[in-house]
Amino acid sequence: MIKVGIVGATGYTGAELLRLLLGHSHVEVVAITSRTAAGQRVDDLFSNLRGRINLLFTNPAAETLKACDVVFFATPNGIAMQSVPALLEAGVKIIDLGADFRLRNADIWHQWYGCEHACPELLPEAVYGLPELNRSAIRTARLVANPGCYPTAVVLGFLPLIEARIIQTGHLIVDAKSGVSGAGRKAQTSTLLCEAGENLKAYGVDAHRHWPEIRQALIQIANEDVELVFVPHLVPMIRGVFATLYARLRADAVDLQQIFERRYASEPFVDVLPAGSHPETRSVRGGNQCRIAVHRPSDGATAVVLAVIDNLVKGAAGQAIQNMNLMVGVDETSGLSGIALLP
Amino acid sequence: MIKVGIVGATGYTGAELLRLLLGHSHVEVVAITSRTAAGQRVDDLFSNLRGRINLLFTNPAAETLKACDVVFFATPNGIAMQSVPALLEAGVKIIDLGADFRLRNADIWHQWYGCEHACPELLPEAVYGLPELNRSAIRTARLVANPGCYPTAVVLGFLPLIEARIIQTGHLIVDAKSGVSGAGRKAQTSTLLCEAGENLKAYGVDAHRHWPEIRQALIQIANEDVELVFVPHLVPMIRGVFATLYARLRADAVDLQQIFERRYASEPFVDVLPAGSHPETRSVRGGNQCRIAVHRPSDGATAVVLAVIDNLVKGAAGQAIQNMNLMVGVDETSGLSGIALLP
Amino acid sequence: MIKVGIVGATGYTGAELLRLLLGHSHVEVVAITSRTAAGQRVDDLFSNLRGRINLLFTNPAAETLKACDVVFFATPNGIAMQSVPALLEAGVKIIDLGADFRLRNADIWHQWYGCEHACPELLPEAVYGLPELNRSAIRTARLVANPGCYPTAVVLGFLPLIEARIIQTGHLIVDAKSGVSGAGRKAQTSTLLCEAGENLKAYGVDAHRHWPEIRQALIQIANEDVELVFVPHLVPMIRGVFATLYARLRADAVDLQQIFERRYASEPFVDVLPAGSHPETRSVRGGNQCRIAVHRPSDGATAVVLAVIDNLVKGAAGQAIQNMNLMVGVDETSGLSGIALLP
Amino acid sequence: MIKVGIVGATGYTGAELLRLLLGHSHVEVVAITSRTAAGQRVDDLFSNLRGRINLLFTNPAAETLKACDVVFFATPNGIAMQSVPALLEAGVKIIDLGADFRLRNADIWHQWYGCEHACPELLPEAVYGLPELNRSAIRTARLVANPGCYPTAVVLGFLPLIEARIIQTGHLIVDAKSGVSGAGRKAQTSTLLCEAGENLKAYGVDAHRHWPEIRQALIQIANEDVELVFVPHLVPMIRGVFATLYARLRADAVDLQQIFERRYASEPFVDVLPAGSHPETRSVRGGNQCRIAVHRPSDGATAVVLAVIDNLVKGAAGQAIQNMNLMVGVDETSGLSGIALLP
Repeated sequence: MIKVGIVGATGYTGAELLRLLLGHSHVEVVAITSRTAAGQRVDDLFSNLRGRINLLFTNPAAETLKACDVVFFATPNGIAMQSVPALLEAGVKIIDLGADFRLRNADIWHQWYGCEHACPELLPEAVYGLPELNRSAIRTARLVANPGCYPTAVVLGFLPLIEARIIQTGHLIVDAKSGVSGAGRKAQTSTLLCEAGENLKAYGVDAHRHWPEIRQALIQIANEDVELVFVPHLVPMIRGVFATLYARLRADAVDLQQIFERRYASEPFVDVLPAGSHPETRSVRGGNQCRIAVHRPSDGATAVVLAVIDNLVKGAAGQAIQNMNLMVGVDETSGLSGIALLP
Repeated sequence: MIKVGIVGATGYTGAELLRLLLGHSHVEVVAITSRTAAGQRVDDLFSNLRGRINLLFTNPAAETLKACDVVFFATPNGIAMQSVPALLEAGVKIIDLGADFRLRNADIWHQWYGCEHACPELLPEAVYGLPELNRSAIRTARLVANPGCYPTAVVLGFLPLIEARIIQTGHLIVDAKSGVSGAGRKAQTSTLLCEAGENLKAYGVDAHRHWPEIRQALIQIANEDVELVFVPHLVPMIRGVFATLYARLRADAVDLQQIFERRYASEPFVDVLPAGSHPETRSVRGGNQCRIAVHRPSDGATAVVLAVIDNLVKGAAGQAIQNMNLMVGVDETSGLSGIALLP
Repeated sequence: MIKVGIVGATGYTGAELLRLLLGHSHVEVVAITSRTAAGQRVDDLFSNLRGRINLLFTNPAAETLKACDVVFFATPNGIAMQSVPALLEAGVKIIDLGADFRLRNADIWHQWYGCEHACPELLPEAVYGLPELNRSAIRTARLVANPGCYPTAVVLGFLPLIEARIIQTGHLIVDAKSGVSGAGRKAQTSTLLCEAGENLKAYGVDAHRHWPEIRQALIQIANEDVELVFVPHLVPMIRGVFATLYARLRADAVDLQQIFERRYASEPFVDVLPAGSHPETRSVRGGNQCRIAVHRPSDGATAVVLAVIDNLVKGAAGQAIQNMNLMVGVDETSGLSGIALLP
Repeated sequence: MIKVGIVGATGYTGAELLRLLLGHSHVEVVAITSRTAAGQRVDDLFSNLRGRINLLFTNPAAETLKACDVVFFATPNGIAMQSVPALLEAGVKIIDLGADFRLRNADIWHQWYGCEHACPELLPEAVYGLPELNRSAIRTARLVANPGCYPTAVVLGFLPLIEARIIQTGHLIVDAKSGVSGAGRKAQTSTLLCEAGENLKAYGVDAHRHWPEIRQALIQIANEDVELVFVPHLVPMIRGVFATLYARLRADAVDLQQIFERRYASEPFVDVLPAGSHPETRSVRGGNQCRIAVHRPSDGATAVVLAVIDNLVKGAAGQAIQNMNLMVGVDETSGLSGIALLP
């Protein structure tokens, strides 16, 4: 059994990690830490887990975590980087669901996250944990930076087009929509049911931290400069990310459907829908799939990609477990075979 | 492997049966019938099943169904009773998720469902499929009437109190609330998002078909007459039944918490919450649990029971599978270990 | 023009007061105070008011408020009582939307609200501002305690039955449901969209502050002791209170429908629905109506009353304005003629 | 008083017309027709109108409608064009909330709406009822084609940019989002709460009837060809349209904020938000405003416009009344001063 620890498990990604790991046949969860909830039963906070877990939240103690095979960080940005070096030294594999190791450049990290990076020397080693892009590197990684929810959907959506070199990468447009769980479980006015319910708004149009993350990944794929406009929106639902992507086509005679189907033919968690389809977020609610459709409307000059994921699963906890499976060498789909809940 | 057929699988209970059965290690789904959707891929209708099922809906053909070990009917009321006798004769075990076999008296059935019962001779044999009440009878049954969603929550909530003979059964009050999926997937104005969303209403106060069903079950338990007022409400959410039950206590010196805990101590799917708790429907979303709390507020003369289930799982498909497990002799919890989705 | 001040206008009742008062032809809003938002434009906080108000939030200054004809307190409990005596002395009429003056007994207030009352000498003078019960006293009051949202719906629902002396008042049952705006606009986890959305729960079953308030009002009406069980529930919608009331009937031969219609025949804001009706909260969304239906299901021994209000309007800001209209002698319906928003 | 008739008032736009017209001081509603609901009380269907209207739905009779000053058609596409010629001849002014008179070219209408146009001779005369674009023509029109909800938000969002000739009109991108009420009140599976709730999807990516309508209006403004990609999405909320518009800028040195503020300085219902703002749909819920913000993110090459309306008000009934006010010569804002409902 893989001994797993979770640091900072009082938020939604932590809760989702627990839901999935408790059904993972190769995993034993041995430590769940939280400074604020230490001493409290885990199933007091997450009533869905009653009868399935007997642990309490504990204070994050180095000794306990060092005894784990894998430690997940589901902490706010800037926390994981404080503890990761010591754990790596102790031989623990790390998957950070936060943003501490997503950007390769410490200066850019500083610029977007507002503080000095605590261990910039680890940034080159950290692997960006999108299996469809970096599978072999993940297999051998000690430290995986789990991608953000928006970047997961956006990069999977653009990947086949960029690899096929058929779109103009200088003017990509990303119109992204997220359910409210993407904003976390912290007490704040803006995500109250009475503020976010029955309402739609854009936010962060001029600056959003997922913009440099997306751009970095697309540049890696394109091997040339990429410019994109990224407009995220908050949708009155709990789970789901919907990315609508727009790119000008370089050539006329391309079969977009075939390009997507071929690229993802052997991917266990990317589902290319039949031509003409419209994916919906509920088709992946609670599941680890990314479902994608590609269209070419109006005058045919623009590729429109529609990609949906569950932000807490393929956009966070599920992808983290997919990464863990690769890192420890079990079946990539272990613990991730749950079917999405519909309706 | 248990060969399973599902008749009428285009509604929400059918979809939920599929979601659960596809993860059931002892089951092979061999036929999914629907007159209206015959020829259509099942995963065209339920996009969450893409990649997990390769079947088409077929026209209900006696031959195919007779080759099954178990057939589930997820049909509108009045349909199952047309086909059940022939299937029973062919040795198929039947679980009807509709109401055709829930009431033991054909006249009362006629009165509430508006047509003659097609096989009243089977009513005495049909077992009311609430395992917590009728487990041993279910094990040997050929024909199980799966309880309604409201009755499941209400009967489980009153059961310990009535068995312990500590409440006045002449004036029970049931204030029940249901998510909209309880009304099914049919096209109708009243359950449109714009009608049922951001709205709360009671309905069927003067007559609801679950009233005689609840009353019949409570009379069986009480072995005396039971009178109850039943007021259902439609809540702007997809899944969940919440039953708030009120009963006058006969005696003063009773430990309600202990009575509930003892009664359900060995039940795999009934979770008695600690004293003072307030269950919530999301704690069972997608799971087969019924979570219950019991209170004694104000002057202590009234027991207040709060019971929650997922109407599509413990209130329909999950309970049907629990019944199937008992009928075919596999572990009662097989295929039902999924953890509720929260948030 | 009536010069109006609002103290503590950053919550939902404050916002709703503004929406309604800005459309009131006899009112000029001259001061809107908030310690936390002082200096901020009001329409920065409430974007629906853009173009309709040019004021900033100011610090609550005694001088400004003393220059008002009427001051509304939309503050947390325990705040209004600090300032009310001085304002009354200055000749200002006060309407408190909080609970400071709702309970007549200072000891009971202390017991439920956890602190000493600052001006118990004013409690006998304060009028409980339910116009349908206390209209004439409100007309001459200096200080009105605006009822809570649940009490408004519950008292209006029981009023005709108790006045007609046809129900047993020793065992009333109130099963109440509220939209989330009843919990206010403060940052807290429990009312996040991801916690309160797609979920139903009861809360405060063993103790809720509206219980003594309801009981006090019903005792006033009954002129005898009243016992009630009060179970509130949180519903995943923004606005609306739905009260389902259960009372054992004393006599058999009563026409409940007629009793309600007669009692409320001349009330501008109470709408008795035709026999057999089921009111819905959206029928009063944004409006000041209370819509009521009365039923007598099953064996006829129990009266079931269904009453709906918008908790922010008839349950708070609208009723406060109705009280103001009575206190200053303008048409009781002034500023309250808006039609509910449906869908 | 303006005598008004409404044809086909059983849908949401009809209900909203009634809510607004009943508060319009210059209007008397004299006829409300519906074939399906004839004989039924209007307030039976729309419970929010109880106490405010005493009319029944009637069968559409030419005589009654001919006695009106203005007739609104809130009928499905293809109905209004059957009756309009006779009513015009009788001197009635017509506002069609459907699509029958929106496209100037009968062949294009045929292509998108699937049947022959019944009175193509009226198409040149019909005025596209967007007051901000065609105010003077509306004042003198006999027949106004009320714009669709998406086109209203999209055209108002692009209008200042196109008039200022600062964007490339060959590759406009419209990512539009609508609440479910835009799909109407008809019984259908796809807009059930359990299908459209907690879900986000795109639809009609390859062909949507608002695409030619938007394009026609933009071409009128640009006086040159316009190409656009239009991707509509269905959002799990009742009301609201959110249009996110993307356009490549032709020149670098432009002050987008100033261009918008100047263009709409005297418009009563277009509110340009301060620079850096993010409008939200609830800020216009029930109100006739369009609120707009303009951004220039990332490398500054793209203008991003965010525009919100209530699809039933500025996107349908409110705009229709604004048009009526212009046509009959009363204050343009009459009956439209209600403040949006928030929360």
